[in-house]
This record gives sequence, C-alpha cells and structure tokens, in this order.
Amino acid sequence: MIFQLSIVQASKMLQNLQQILDKGAAFAASKKIDMTVLLNARLAPDQFNLIRQVQIACDSAKLGAARLTNQVDSAPKHADDETTLEQLSQRVADTVAYLATFNPADFADAASQKVSQPRWEGKYLTGDEFLIQHVLPNIYFHITTAYAILRHNGVDVGKKDYLGAMPYKS
Amino acid sequence: MIFQLSIVQASKMLQNLQQILDKGAAFAASKKIDMTVLLNARLAPDQFNLIRQVQIACDSAKLGAARLTNQVDSAPKHADDETTLEQLSQRVADTVAYLATFNPADFADAASQKVSQPRWEGKYLTGDEFLIQHVLPNIYFHITTAYAILRHNGVDVGKKDYLGAMPYKS
Repeated sequence: MIFQLSIVQASKMLQNLQQILDKGAAFAASKKIDMTVLLNARLAPDQFNLIRQVQIACDSAKLGAARLTNQVDSAPKHADDETTLEQLSQRVADTVAYLATFNPADFADAASQKVSQPRWEGKYLTGDEFLIQHVLPNIYFHITTAYAILRHNGVDVGKKDYLGAMPYKS
Repeated sequence: MIFQLSIVQASKMLQNLQQILDKGAAFAASKKIDMTVLLNARLAPDQFNLIRQVQIACDSAKLGAARLTNQVDSAPKHADDETTLEQLSQRVADTVAYLATFNPADFADAASQKVSQPRWEGKYLTGDEFLIQHVLPNIYFHITTAYAILRHNGVDVGKKDYLGAMPYKS
C-alpha cells in the first residue's frame, strides 16, 4: 500500500493538478488576463503564491518517495526558479517521471525506514509515520491550496478536477 | 495501515481542524467580529462555506470508516444543521468519538471490500481504491479548504496547525 499511496496516487494527484493549472490558463486566455497574474496569486499576503504551492506539492511527492527508499541523494534537484506556466508544467512532468522510476519492491523496507530531514535536528520518524502524517497531508495541502487560489480567482474548477477519474467497476 | 490512515490519522486531522477553528474564534473575538461571519465565509461565490467544509470533512471520515467496514447503516446520522461554532465543534467531537469505536481488526477485510454509494449507480470501488483515491483526498481537501477560508480572512494559522504534532524520535 505504501507504493500505491506514495507513487501511484501521488502521480495521479500531480496530473490532476496539471489539469487544474491548464484550466487556469484557459480561463486567463478567455479573459485576456496575463497568466503571470494567476501564477503569482495567493489567498493571504503571507501565504505562498500559486507557483510556490505547485513547487512544494512536487517536492513533497519527490522527497517523500526518495526518503522512504533512502535515495534522497540521487533525487533530481530543482532550483525553484519557475516563473511561467510552461516551466511549472515541466516541473510537474519531471516529478511524475521521477515517481515512475520506482517499483513496489523499492518500498519493501519503507515502513520501518528511519526518515529524517535537516530541519529535524537529528530526530526521525518511521517511514509509515512520515508517509501518513507528513507526506500525504503535505501533498494534499498544496494541491488543494493551488486549486483554491484558482477557484478564488474565478477559474471553473470543481471537486472532480481535484479527485480525478475513479476506477469504478460494475 | 488502513486503520492508521482511516482512523488514527483522520482523528488527528479532525482534532487539528478543531484547533484551527478555535484560532478562528479567538481571532473573531479579538477583532470583535461575529464568528458567524467566518463560519459563513467562502473562497468563491459558488464554493461551500466554512460550516459546510467542516461538515463534509467529518462525513468523509465517518462514512469512510463506516463503508470500509460495511457498517454504514449503523453509523450516526447528522442533520447538517449546525449554525454555531459550538454546534460545529460538537460535530467534530462526535465524529472523533465515532472513529474511536473502531479497532484494527474491523478493517481485516477492508482492502478488498466492495464499496459503493447511492450516487455511483451500482458501481463500486475496492476498499483500498476507495480509501486511497476518495476518502483521504476528500478529508484533506475539506480540512485544507476550511484552513484556507480562515487564513484568507486574516486568522493566524500555519502549516503546523494543519499537520499537528509529529511523533519525532531521537
């Protein structure tokens, strides 16, 4: 289930985010608004703008997978210098491509892996704690906030855009 | 892991949501704003207000656990008639109390459980699909949106309020 949560579902959510960004671009074009306005929009003066929300959503997924599999040193680096939708979409695509390099077997020891980050000053979480209490809440937080920034600015996005298609069976 | 995700972590997130609502109430009191104003605030004219976001966050957790364990008929009913913070806090507390009635053993067959909802017209998801692609994204969506409504209105909430305490070990 760790692979399903951290790779398959995270990839799906990032692709849903891309579709939400594309709806933002279509809205901007139809209203003759510079997309840069939406990319720099934020819900509160001291909250991150849309660009930063997308960057952090991507890094939550990328570093989640990398840390759970103890591969953080070989994870791709990103300079967080995107300023256009094209660059931001490339960031999302790069992250999805990175996630696609993982296999379920890579996560065999993930649940009990000791995961730390520089800012935790030597303390750690187990892999399942890290995934459940840190990675997933962060991915959903930043994708939902990106969605909310666009929705607040008039883009016609709905819950289905956020959730994506469901694998219904009959 | 299903119990951890759908009960333990969902309960934690609802308690974090309660603290975020309490910060909203403290902000309203300090600014001499009627809390009803914040409870009815929304980020877009056609998006649900704060009350409804909290109600749906609660129901996503309640019905997630109930459907995964095939106990939806015995789950507590809620009329969605809350209008005050006190009533909304009771709704959150009731939901956390309901989640506390579950044990890990209740989820022994959850992953392969066939889960359906009236609006799915007879189609179903497996339990793990339902949890990963529906329940968790919905819980996080509505808690993040509740947070964003308050943040947008000036309440001093941050990511730590949303994530809650981490079980760091050294």
